[in-house]
Amino acid sequence: VKAVVIAIGNELTNGQSLDTNSAWLSEQLGAVGVEVIEHRTVPDTQPLIVSALRECTAAADLVVVTGGLGPTPDDLTRHALAEVMGATLIPDDSSMETIEAFFRKRGREMNPINRVQALIPAGAEVLANPVGTAPGIRAELGRTTVYVLPGVPHEMKTMYTHQVVPRLSSRQQTIVHEIVRLFGAGESDVAARISDLMLRDGPLVVGTTVTAGLISVRITSTAQSHEAAQSQMIPLIQEIHGRLGSLVLGVGNDVTVQSVLGEGLRNLGQSLATAESCTGGLLGALLTEVPGSSEYYLGGVVAYHNGIKQTMLHVGEDVLAEYGAVSEPVAGAMARGVREVFGADWGIGITGVAGPSGGTAEKPVGTVCFALSGPDGTEVRREIFPGDRYRVRHRAALSAMNLLRLKLGRVCGTWQ
Amino acid sequence: VKAVVIAIGNELTNGQSLDTNSAWLSEQLGAVGVEVIEHRTVPDTQPLIVSALRECTAAADLVVVTGGLGPTPDDLTRHALAEVMGATLIPDDSSMETIEAFFRKRGREMNPINRVQALIPAGAEVLANPVGTAPGIRAELGRTTVYVLPGVPHEMKTMYTHQVVPRLSSRQQTIVHEIVRLFGAGESDVAARISDLMLRDGPLVVGTTVTAGLISVRITSTAQSHEAAQSQMIPLIQEIHGRLGSLVLGVGNDVTVQSVLGEGLRNLGQSLATAESCTGGLLGALLTEVPGSSEYYLGGVVAYHNGIKQTMLHVGEDVLAEYGAVSEPVAGAMARGVREVFGADWGIGITGVAGPSGGTAEKPVGTVCFALSGPDGTEVRREIFPGDRYRVRHRAALSAMNLLRLKLGRVCGTWQ
Repeated sequence: VKAVVIAIGNELTNGQSLDTNSAWLSEQLGAVGVEVIEHRTVPDTQPLIVSALRECTAAADLVVVTGGLGPTPDDLTRHALAEVMGATLIPDDSSMETIEAFFRKRGREMNPINRVQALIPAGAEVLANPVGTAPGIRAELGRTTVYVLPGVPHEMKTMYTHQVVPRLSSRQQTIVHEIVRLFGAGESDVAARISDLMLRDGPLVVGTTVTAGLISVRITSTAQSHEAAQSQMIPLIQEIHGRLGSLVLGVGNDVTVQSVLGEGLRNLGQSLATAESCTGGLLGALLTEVPGSSEYYLGGVVAYHNGIKQTMLHVGEDVLAEYGAVSEPVAGAMARGVREVFGADWGIGITGVAGPSGGTAEKPVGTVCFALSGPDGTEVRREIFPGDRYRVRHRAALSAMNLLRLKLGRVCGTWQ
Repeated sequence: VKAVVIAIGNELTNGQSLDTNSAWLSEQLGAVGVEVIEHRTVPDTQPLIVSALRECTAAADLVVVTGGLGPTPDDLTRHALAEVMGATLIPDDSSMETIEAFFRKRGREMNPINRVQALIPAGAEVLANPVGTAPGIRAELGRTTVYVLPGVPHEMKTMYTHQVVPRLSSRQQTIVHEIVRLFGAGESDVAARISDLMLRDGPLVVGTTVTAGLISVRITSTAQSHEAAQSQMIPLIQEIHGRLGSLVLGVGNDVTVQSVLGEGLRNLGQSLATAESCTGGLLGALLTEVPGSSEYYLGGVVAYHNGIKQTMLHVGEDVLAEYGAVSEPVAGAMARGVREVFGADWGIGITGVAGPSGGTAEKPVGTVCFALSGPDGTEVRREIFPGDRYRVRHRAALSAMNLLRLKLGRVCGTWQ
């Protein structure tokens, strides 16, 4: 089965937004044995959408379209589909009810322009949207099936999973993607240690990517069945784990430093509190991304202003004066202070120069001191992280969590 | 001038990598008046590259291709271009010398497979690559000019700037993009109030998109000069602002709720502290994304555990017991508490049910209470936000900041 993915939107063709939907859909389609032979992106212009639909339905067995289903006059996908089908747009009653209910539930008055979202080409199938107002559409054009989904990524993903996947017939070959997630080394260091495992051809294909400071070793496994594709990866994953040891967070796209750390704290029945300066709450925000984090995360203090470090965390005025706010002693005092004030088993403190200004020769932008305080005392680290304000802060929060992850000895996550 | 951007690579069509080249090229081309009418992505398969080149050169005046110029057997762009041109591939001496020098300079032995990179279709022009081994190619196909550039982003960008830009004949027109950023209403409400301004044709094109809870009204302005393109947008932006009033955060891609709020607090010389439960630090993290936020943001307390709400924020045990942690009175007490403890002009409190579990009939997942405490007392809001844990938390933090933005009366950002 060959597929084309079409993305629609001026913001995509003029380069203001990046098309992430097509890559996501292609990975998902690959996982069920569908080969994606083209991505195509066209603007919100009906004749161009019509040509794209005509050409792509002629070239592929399956066409998945995202975008252009909103309520505004520049949302023209349903009109273009109707034109290609030679069908009129007719209101779908159940979609109309869903849209009205969406606004009723949130106590908002529905603007009449939303009614256009309930229009469906005659002869097409409505795909209910459980998370938004625009229903999707399924249509047959010759021997090709077309699915039209909303462009908002979380709506598109929900619709694909709940509406498209069940309608795809079962495939001969299954492609399974798996990720071994790592933290604590550079990509080239990792690649050098597993270079002989980076296979390019055959049933197992291995490569590395870096996303948001985490390294992913990506494995693509092709076999006759899902079980076979899964099991032929196991020796490879074990070998990677054997070589990379505590760099390995775990296996799976959901594995993060905070998820593995949370699992460790929960298993040990221990609690954590945080004291943040340059990260401004990001460490707490990352820790609480994990559902159920209230079982081990008590909370923290964002001590952005130096006075707060003294009043809320009992960092000594003399320590601040002698070493400066960005220093190992202050990070240590913050970690100890928050551990005591919150009555936690573990306290983490972070202070640094996130940039773009504020750097000095001795403490350049990117300098971060972070500390872990626990039953055995306090450990302190000082690092200079590269990149912009966003990257420095993110890397600082991950590195501080990783210090506790390693301390807990929970180096291995979910993979065996 | 109409252009199509083609990206080539299996890693793109199978979704393992995101195509960032096409968006970058489209922005650059728009800046010199070239309208991009399509992005197309095809795998490393010669017949598919050939079809893409044939179809796109028929549809556009200019085609820019990235990728598939490497030395390995899956790099087939030059072969496909030669096929479409009906030309043979011939070695280019100066490219051969450049490639040999590249390896010599690095003290590495050149693998003979690199010689394929010096092959150019007869009749095409070689574009020297100062930063890598693969030269680019320029060819005429009928009335269409084709540029082929390497896929490695930094090589592509250097080649575009140094080889393509000087060859683009000077254009009659310049295209400028601008964004009016909004928060506080649904996309359809916004569109209804400016539907007659959502122009589809002519020198001004207007559309709306939603990203991370913020609405963007995107304006594309085409004129003879940059100045003319800028100035013809001004009456339109003024009209949008007049109709949408305090929904408008400001103009520009960098405008966010936190940047506008920060500007207001800085101008007034006032300070802010935050008390967060369900957002876990996200509110602080967003506020401190803005460089210089230490001028007005003192910090906060992440009171994830209920005991912390009492000890650190002085929320009464009786209030927690009577109304529950997710309630207007607790949000109000958190905002008042943090304002007092931190000695800030303003205090914000947030408590809610971010999900996926923890919801009840009375307080379903998505229920968030947030409060603003200031010199005149405390205002409280209760909302039910749709979506998953990530979206509920993000929307809660934005809404709480927006309450203070509106209070400060800083409804207008940078646009006039």
